[in-house]
Amino acid sequence: MSLADMRRVIDPDTYFDHNSPPTNLQWAHDQVDEFVKRQSPDQRIVLVTSGGTTVPLENNTVRFVDNFSAGTRGSSSAEQFLAMGYAVVFLYREQSLQPFNRHYSHNSKGLLSYLERGSDGQIRVKPEWEQQLGRDLDLYQKFTGEGKLLMLNFTTLSDYLFLLREVSLLVASLGPRVMFYLAAAVSDFFIPSHSMSEHKIQSAAGDLTLRMNQVPKFLGPLVKNWVPLCFIVSFKLETDPELLGPKARHALEKYGHQVVIANMLDTRKQKVWLFTKNEAICPAAIEISKEDLDAGKDIEQDLVVELARRHQQYISDAK
Amino acid sequence: MSLADMRRVIDPDTYFDHNSPPTNLQWAHDQVDEFVKRQSPDQRIVLVTSGGTTVPLENNTVRFVDNFSAGTRGSSSAEQFLAMGYAVVFLYREQSLQPFNRHYSHNSKGLLSYLERGSDGQIRVKPEWEQQLGRDLDLYQKFTGEGKLLMLNFTTLSDYLFLLREVSLLVASLGPRVMFYLAAAVSDFFIPSHSMSEHKIQSAAGDLTLRMNQVPKFLGPLVKNWVPLCFIVSFKLETDPELLGPKARHALEKYGHQVVIANMLDTRKQKVWLFTKNEAICPAAIEISKEDLDAGKDIEQDLVVELARRHQQYISDAK
Repeated sequence: MSLADMRRVIDPDTYFDHNSPPTNLQWAHDQVDEFVKRQSPDQRIVLVTSGGTTVPLENNTVRFVDNFSAGTRGSSSAEQFLAMGYAVVFLYREQSLQPFNRHYSHNSKGLLSYLERGSDGQIRVKPEWEQQLGRDLDLYQKFTGEGKLLMLNFTTLSDYLFLLREVSLLVASLGPRVMFYLAAAVSDFFIPSHSMSEHKIQSAAGDLTLRMNQVPKFLGPLVKNWVPLCFIVSFKLETDPELLGPKARHALEKYGHQVVIANMLDTRKQKVWLFTKNEAICPAAIEISKEDLDAGKDIEQDLVVELARRHQQYISDAK
Repeated sequence: MSLADMRRVIDPDTYFDHNSPPTNLQWAHDQVDEFVKRQSPDQRIVLVTSGGTTVPLENNTVRFVDNFSAGTRGSSSAEQFLAMGYAVVFLYREQSLQPFNRHYSHNSKGLLSYLERGSDGQIRVKPEWEQQLGRDLDLYQKFTGEGKLLMLNFTTLSDYLFLLREVSLLVASLGPRVMFYLAAAVSDFFIPSHSMSEHKIQSAAGDLTLRMNQVPKFLGPLVKNWVPLCFIVSFKLETDPELLGPKARHALEKYGHQVVIANMLDTRKQKVWLFTKNEAICPAAIEISKEDLDAGKDIEQDLVVELARRHQQYISDAK
């Protein structure tokens, strides 16, 4: 990075000084605090971030830049982490997919499509959905009932960053038994509040030129300062295959964390690569067949099993 | 508009030549064709558009610009149009609010939060939701069962414009008994496909400058060429109160359609103004109290009653 570029990218701490925290920050703080205290001393905990962040283009927001992410990776992984005994803090974009609910929310159907009145006049689940929905309902109620699943929501980039820092500082002292699984698609660019348009941008003036600044890389302070003892997994999504390996390796070298999961936009549901310090040249690949995918299997099942194994090793090594 | 501006804004027809139609265009065509044929000869029909459109920033889309709109106005209005005997084509943004389902989809809860297992082991709606949910379920099933509600979905600006034109051309011959209720929040700016980045925009290069072109105003060809005999209602949302009246009047003069509904972002759920040719200076205001709003009343109930009254007058005048 050139000196000119370095000057343009603001310091992460400066970011927090110049942006307002989300309204749910104190609530989230209290929730996480209670959640952590409720767990047993050797309970493995994972923070799963999920969905895309928005970047407002106006202070009175009508328009924003968004990142593509339905939240499939995050919500599916959260289910698998729960199944493997983890306590899960699920930090997700409002309206993105949620664990267990995800099969019923992003398919153009609404809740009412799953229900009907029985012959007795009572509302019931349509027979064709009863089995799958019953299974998901039981799991959802089990994990929320046992206090193993905490859901925190964000919308903007700024909300996300404040919440990420807050959760980090609350779990830092738990050390190696906490995993960070950073699957959210976080914006790389933003418009600083002071250079945003106050009102809705008017179209009558002709073309629109937007100048956006680079978002500081928060993985740096997260790894170095916020949670230096935790097990950190970041993601790298690309559309150009030539860039995927080099960028994954670069992230690993630059931040020195445990795992970069690399994936291509087109094939992300079928194949991912795990880059680690010892597998920087030949990353481990996790892949599922087209048949398994079509049969409803999620690659996150295998991915999370593998990560949990590595996390366990990391915990043992730290002892 | 200066000559330089006119040159920059492309012709609406040119837009369709340079963009690809959505994959559901033929399906939508067939659905609307059948839907229209099913209705009786004097059935009033309304096309309700709802939700925001996205504008991709990359051809392999990771990032896009979005317009703020949950789809509250459109989905609530569609319910009221149905209640008043209209047949409704609901052209909505994927994941935005849908009629009757809207109370259960955008509140951070998933479908599973509304369900539980009864003492007999059967899945049922939680008692506290049974009454409201039962009412919405019955209405939803009644109107879909009677073939009075057709749902068509879009995501991008381009999807929306192709579908809008397709529906327009299919209902044009029905004349005055068709209302267009254009509540969707349509992007004013876009990046033409040929000047888009092929791959995900890289952040390492520093700041990002986006140059966006103005979207041609499709209300012009819609009013003049596509559906010159229909009753057309457009919307104007602003955040700067000084601009609202002038912009609503300007739209009415420029396009010569029947009604512009003007509203402020902050107070859009409590107050709207109806600008028409004869009420360009003193628009009719429709307003509900804070108490009614808090008690769950939607302003769309009164708004749609008033529009239906004006539409009926328009139909009578056309005879």
